[in-house]
Amino acid sequence: MEYDFEQIDSIINAKSVAVVGASNSPTKFGYLVTRSQVTMGFSGPLYLVNQNEDEIMGRPAYPDLRSVPETPDLVYLTIPAHRSMDVLSDCASIGVKAVIMMASGFREAGERGKALEDEALRIARDGGFRMIGPNCFGIYNPRNRLTLLPGHDFSSNVGDVAFISQSGGFSAHVARQGKSVGVDFSAVVSYGNAADLDETDFMRYFGEDRATGIITAYLEGARRPEQFARVLRETASSKPVVIWKVGRSESSRRAVVSHTGSLAGSPELWDALIAQSGAIEASGVDELLDIVLALKLFGMSPGRRLLICGGGGGLGTCAADLAWAHGLDVPALDGEVFSRMHDTLDRAGAVVGNPLDIGAPLIPAPFLEAALSQAASNPTTDILVFDLAVNFGYDIAGDFGIERALEVLTDVRSHSRVPIAAVLYSRSFDPDDMRFETMIRRMRKRLHGSGVAVFPTMDRALRAIAAINGLR
Amino acid sequence: MEYDFEQIDSIINAKSVAVVGASNSPTKFGYLVTRSQVTMGFSGPLYLVNQNEDEIMGRPAYPDLRSVPETPDLVYLTIPAHRSMDVLSDCASIGVKAVIMMASGFREAGERGKALEDEALRIARDGGFRMIGPNCFGIYNPRNRLTLLPGHDFSSNVGDVAFISQSGGFSAHVARQGKSVGVDFSAVVSYGNAADLDETDFMRYFGEDRATGIITAYLEGARRPEQFARVLRETASSKPVVIWKVGRSESSRRAVVSHTGSLAGSPELWDALIAQSGAIEASGVDELLDIVLALKLFGMSPGRRLLICGGGGGLGTCAADLAWAHGLDVPALDGEVFSRMHDTLDRAGAVVGNPLDIGAPLIPAPFLEAALSQAASNPTTDILVFDLAVNFGYDIAGDFGIERALEVLTDVRSHSRVPIAAVLYSRSFDPDDMRFETMIRRMRKRLHGSGVAVFPTMDRALRAIAAINGLR
Repeated sequence: MEYDFEQIDSIINAKSVAVVGASNSPTKFGYLVTRSQVTMGFSGPLYLVNQNEDEIMGRPAYPDLRSVPETPDLVYLTIPAHRSMDVLSDCASIGVKAVIMMASGFREAGERGKALEDEALRIARDGGFRMIGPNCFGIYNPRNRLTLLPGHDFSSNVGDVAFISQSGGFSAHVARQGKSVGVDFSAVVSYGNAADLDETDFMRYFGEDRATGIITAYLEGARRPEQFARVLRETASSKPVVIWKVGRSESSRRAVVSHTGSLAGSPELWDALIAQSGAIEASGVDELLDIVLALKLFGMSPGRRLLICGGGGGLGTCAADLAWAHGLDVPALDGEVFSRMHDTLDRAGAVVGNPLDIGAPLIPAPFLEAALSQAASNPTTDILVFDLAVNFGYDIAGDFGIERALEVLTDVRSHSRVPIAAVLYSRSFDPDDMRFETMIRRMRKRLHGSGVAVFPTMDRALRAIAAINGLR
Repeated sequence: MEYDFEQIDSIINAKSVAVVGASNSPTKFGYLVTRSQVTMGFSGPLYLVNQNEDEIMGRPAYPDLRSVPETPDLVYLTIPAHRSMDVLSDCASIGVKAVIMMASGFREAGERGKALEDEALRIARDGGFRMIGPNCFGIYNPRNRLTLLPGHDFSSNVGDVAFISQSGGFSAHVARQGKSVGVDFSAVVSYGNAADLDETDFMRYFGEDRATGIITAYLEGARRPEQFARVLRETASSKPVVIWKVGRSESSRRAVVSHTGSLAGSPELWDALIAQSGAIEASGVDELLDIVLALKLFGMSPGRRLLICGGGGGLGTCAADLAWAHGLDVPALDGEVFSRMHDTLDRAGAVVGNPLDIGAPLIPAPFLEAALSQAASNPTTDILVFDLAVNFGYDIAGDFGIERALEVLTDVRSHSRVPIAAVLYSRSFDPDDMRFETMIRRMRKRLHGSGVAVFPTMDRALRAIAAINGLR
């Protein structure tokens, strides 16, 4: 069917929603999705439909769609596949414009399922409504607080990152991990089998959507390969696009067919398409979010010349190896900066150079400030990467020292043209030792707030920096 | 100097120690190392030496080594390089057999430092004592509770993993992360510049040491390349050896010289040496510890045929891609197992195959138990990899459901010939949400205790399994 921006927009930003299959029974998906709506506080009317219940979570339940007092913008079906056709007919008869079908058991499940999916699509076409799914979770949108993904604890912060996902599990996983690492979304869409609206539609929609600045996607295949290729090229020329495409191995392609009934296509062709379009390739949830964080704080193609800095010789040596493996440069320091820094860091154990070893995990704030400012002024530096090594530093400097180091980092960032990546990890993961974990989470939040990107390992920091420079 | 097992053994398992430069001042290393000794409760006499203090942490301080009431097995120097020569002469004159020199400012710092290091070595040779360092942290040994690394919070559990490290920072980092992930050590040795005892000596020692079952090492170079190659081949033929060798790039080799004054050598020659010797290559702290965990629970070369299992289609698809990238196999299920499992998992959303999608993150325990038992009985499975997806499962099943899933996993493990790797990660890292973090840490501890290896991501699990199968 013809692409129509307004049509998709009125689904993503739906003003009223009915959930068919809403439930009080905690083991049902109809319970989870209703709880998500209620907890998140969906901004419009929410109609809960279940013929066996009078009320659900303290709200009135309707026996069927025809009893709902208005025609909702969006109907969400969380009922088994074989019971869906009658409800779809109801949707058509009351003039619904959009339906999300959560159930599996359609095209991905073999011939009988495929016939059912064809039937659903026929009802949608005849009834004049669009469909997301089947075999999907649907939409999370913090702007209208629509959360049809099972995520009562998702963030209510509005961001500008869209995630389009053929997998329901990963749509929820990315939304949750995004909250963890400080990535906020314009919307997340899990679209499963793509019987009607597909990756091409959503890519084009988020490309045109002004609320979205960065588009990310988990893809198992493309239903309309040529159209998708064209739309991806157009979209990636105006916004950063990050693509995680699975289906590289025989076993993985087998899994793709049984998961969403998709054809994975040739990995080589996909690699070529992604590279030619200027999109960035990712290969997992963590990497995808690391790349988004790097894009948000460093922009596209910030340059590949790093100044690697920390308190310790081993960490710099190891980081230089990682940089090399990812195609990044660690050039020698400019002569003038070298001399100035040499005067500043005239301390036991410090080794002035690139990588730069400040001598101890944390040094007194005035020295740290001077050294980092000089590092940030180095003319051949595109990004300053600082390993905070709080794990060791804390022993030496305590809460106060850590606090001062954070202030220094924030300060240097605000005065410098050079972006900063900080590497920050937890000391220990014992069940009985949460003090450091708490401290590190707070530090990360503060650093993100002041424009310093935080990564949990040097490898992840450098991998993300390489990706946004088009190196892979 | 000639290798002598007893000599090194009496250093590692020292019965009495003197710390020269012990201090009450929290910013000094002499404070950290004394605190570590006191907190860990070193099993023998600990003599604290500082000419400016009468007592340190409530213990008597001696003005110099000659005032100490007995000749200690080991003397630890945490005083500046230029003040060390006199103390070394004292060591010789009272008949000390072993000295660790912590200070930097020797060979790695240029000509003057090199002369100082030569002088130190001359005093040691003339005085008949062995030396670790300079420019190192020294030893952590939970057997005698000797902790000359800055690690008052290290584990006091005795294990059988040795870590030999040219970097001090990484020696402390590995010891701490090891505690986190449940890897216990026989000993950790940070040896820095290797003026006297070097990587060849320690590799040979831990090869012969009956308390050590797995040897791991972070190396910047080898002072005696031919001897090291021979010792590595001999050692790796009798015990698993994991080598993390840095110095692959020009900037990294530059850093190696200024860090420990080592020559990194050719990366190609090192790769060949490690591969020929049968040792396993690692490239970071996390990977090194993942490999150790895999070795401990799966042994060497457990086989590369995986059965990947979890509740969700995307995660299996993605895992199959990762397996392929790491050279592992995800073969189709045996026909008979397929049929039996098909009867068991006749549930909405379940997809029987390899990868195996159980349909939901957590399914009722009897079904989970049956499915996992069948999976473990599949004749073409070497390792069962189960993604616990607690993040989602918790919403459905709550504490009780998670508890039951753990019991099932433990039960299946105890009845099966097939090792199990579990993937388990935290839901969210918000400063204000530590409940899941705590739960996941407890789960990991329990699973390790029952012989299930836990990894924080699918990628790390598969990378470690590939490594212990010699794939890299």
